[in-house]
Amino acid sequence: MDFLDPRVAQLAPYVPGEQPKTKDFIKLNTNESAYPPAPGVAQAVTQAAANLQLYADPTCQSLRQALGDYLQVPAEQVFVGNGSDEVLAFCFQGLMGHGVAFPDITYGFYSVFAQLYGLKAQVMPLREDLTIDLADYQDCEGTIIFANPNAPTSLGLPAEAILQLVAANPKRLVIVDEAYVAFGGQSMVPYVKDHANLLVVGTFSKSWQLAGARLGYAVAQPALIAELNRVKFSFNPYSVNGMTMAAGQAALADIDYHQACLEKTLASRKWTAQALADLGFDVLPSATNFLFVKHPEISGAQLYPALKERKILVRWFDKARIKDYLRITIGTQAEMAQLLAALRELVD
Amino acid sequence: MDFLDPRVAQLAPYVPGEQPKTKDFIKLNTNESAYPPAPGVAQAVTQAAANLQLYADPTCQSLRQALGDYLQVPAEQVFVGNGSDEVLAFCFQGLMGHGVAFPDITYGFYSVFAQLYGLKAQVMPLREDLTIDLADYQDCEGTIIFANPNAPTSLGLPAEAILQLVAANPKRLVIVDEAYVAFGGQSMVPYVKDHANLLVVGTFSKSWQLAGARLGYAVAQPALIAELNRVKFSFNPYSVNGMTMAAGQAALADIDYHQACLEKTLASRKWTAQALADLGFDVLPSATNFLFVKHPEISGAQLYPALKERKILVRWFDKARIKDYLRITIGTQAEMAQLLAALRELVD
Repeated sequence: MDFLDPRVAQLAPYVPGEQPKTKDFIKLNTNESAYPPAPGVAQAVTQAAANLQLYADPTCQSLRQALGDYLQVPAEQVFVGNGSDEVLAFCFQGLMGHGVAFPDITYGFYSVFAQLYGLKAQVMPLREDLTIDLADYQDCEGTIIFANPNAPTSLGLPAEAILQLVAANPKRLVIVDEAYVAFGGQSMVPYVKDHANLLVVGTFSKSWQLAGARLGYAVAQPALIAELNRVKFSFNPYSVNGMTMAAGQAALADIDYHQACLEKTLASRKWTAQALADLGFDVLPSATNFLFVKHPEISGAQLYPALKERKILVRWFDKARIKDYLRITIGTQAEMAQLLAALRELVD
Repeated sequence: MDFLDPRVAQLAPYVPGEQPKTKDFIKLNTNESAYPPAPGVAQAVTQAAANLQLYADPTCQSLRQALGDYLQVPAEQVFVGNGSDEVLAFCFQGLMGHGVAFPDITYGFYSVFAQLYGLKAQVMPLREDLTIDLADYQDCEGTIIFANPNAPTSLGLPAEAILQLVAANPKRLVIVDEAYVAFGGQSMVPYVKDHANLLVVGTFSKSWQLAGARLGYAVAQPALIAELNRVKFSFNPYSVNGMTMAAGQAALADIDYHQACLEKTLASRKWTAQALADLGFDVLPSATNFLFVKHPEISGAQLYPALKERKILVRWFDKARIKDYLRITIGTQAEMAQLLAALRELVD
C-alpha cells in the first residue's frame, strides 16, 4: 500500500494486558481496582446519558474545577484527557522538542510514543536493584519522563530527590507520571506552582475505580497547560465525553469511598506481600496497587502460564532483566487468597 | 519554553462551535441532533457504568460486530474510534505517506490535521457554485479526502462519480467522510469490498443522537483497518470507553427510533428551506442536517451576531468565499419556527 506513512507503518504498538472475554478469570494483570466505582457514579452517568445528542463542554471546565479543588491547585493548572495515555501522548507530541529520556524499565508506552512522534530517545538503565538513578538524568538532553512510583517495579522515589532534579534543570521539562501515587508514593503536585518545568500526570484508572471511563489529567503551570490544549484542539477537542466527566466528578465527590477502597487495597497488599515472602518470593517494596515479585527457583515465564491455566491472570514481561518477575495486581482479599493457594501448589 | 516541539508550538487549532453554558440558547451551530438518544441508551450506559473499574475491550469487538451488521460489512472491515475526529486524525497520521489533497471549503479540521502531522497538503478550490470538481483530484499527489455530503456547503456528490475516481486511482487512497450521509447522501460503504483504496469515515454524532458519546468509525478492507489499529494501539488503545460502546450498541438496536428522528429532521429541513427561500435567502440544496444559506442583502457577518443577540446560535465562518453564508443546523420544528420569526424581523 503505497499511501502508508513509512513512519507509522513500522511502529510496534503497545500490547495491553489481556482482557479475557469471560468472567471466570481472576484478573490481576492490568492494575485495575478490585472495587466498583463510587455509588454515585452510576446515577451521574445516567443523567449525562440523557443529553448525549449534544457535544459536551470541550474545556471540561467543571470537572477541572472539581479535580483542582481535590488536588489543591487552581483549575487553570489542570488539563484532562481520554486516559493518561492520551495525556502522555500529547506530552510526547508537544513538549519534547529536544527529545526524551526515560528508564529502560518503566511504562512500556513511553518508547512507543517516542517512535510514534519520531523523537530522539535516551533510555537510561535502572540500577541493579531496579531503582531509578536520578543522577543519570542530570546530563542527558531533552525532556525527562518517568513513572513515580515506577511500573512494573512498584518502587517509589522521594519527592525531595525529584525536586532537586527539577530545580537543577530549569530549562528542561520533567514529567512525573503518578498513575500509582495514591497507593504510597509522594506526589509532586504541590511543587508545580513554583516550577515552570514540572508537569505531573495522573489517572482515574487505578485509585478512582474508573479504568473503563478513560480519564487522565496533567497538572502544570498555565503556559504548559495551554500547549497541551493546543495539541488537544488540533486533534480531538471532545476526547473526554460527557459521561466520563460525570463519572469523574461523582468519584471526586465521594472521598470517603475513595479512601475506603485505598485502605482495603493497602491491607491486601500487606497481607499478600507477607504471604508471598513466606513462600520464598523476593517481593519489591511496593508503593503501588501491584507487587513485583520473583521466586528464586521458578521463573515468571513458568509461573505466568501455570497461573493462567488455573484461571488467574497476572502480567509477565518477556524482557531482559525482568523476565523472572511477575507483576501481580492487588485484588480483593479473597482473590489474593486464591492466588496464594495456587502459588503454594506451584512453588512448594 | 525551550522544550516545546516547534512543529506543534505554531499550530493553529480547530475552533469548534460555541457550547453555551446556559440552556437559554436555541443551539443550531454544531449540527447535533435535535432529538435525544434512543430510549435504550440510558439503560445500556447505566449497566456499563457498574463495571467502570475495569478496562473495556480495546478491540471493541461486539460494537464492531453490531455496526458491521447494520452497514452490511464484516466486522473486520470496521474500525471504531473516539469520534470521527480521532478516526480522521489516525488516517492523516498513518495513511498519507505522499501528502493529502482536499477542498478549500470543507471540514476545517482537515487542514489542522495536515499541519499537526506535517503533511504536504494540496488545497483544491471548489467550483464557483461551491460543488467539488472531482476532476481536480485526478492529477494531484497523495491521499484524497473530502466530505460527502460536504460541510459546510451541505452539497452531495453521486456515488458513481466518486467510484470513477476510486477506480481510476488504484494506487492512491480515497477517503470519504460521510458524517452527514444519512440525511440524503449516497454512501460509498457498499463499494469498499471491491476497492482496496477506498476508506469511508462515519460518525454517531449526527444521525445517531450521540455527539456527546464520541463514537466514530471507518470502513475499509482489513489491511487498511490494521493500519488504523497500529496507530490506535500506539496512541491510546482504550480511547472508546465502555459506556460509549454500550451507547452505540443500544442506538444500533433501535433502527425505528433512528428512522423516526431522521424523518422528523428531513421534514423540518424541507419546511425551513422553503421558508428561508420565501424570505429571499439563497438556500443550497442540502443532503445534510443543516442548511447553508445566504441573503442577497444582509451578510452572514451581520446576521450571526443579530441572531445570537436573540439567543439563537448558528455557525458563521469568517472565511473568503463563504463569509456571506450562515450554516444552520436543523433543530426541532418549534426551534426552526423561532429561527424564522427572528430572521423575518432581521431581513424584512
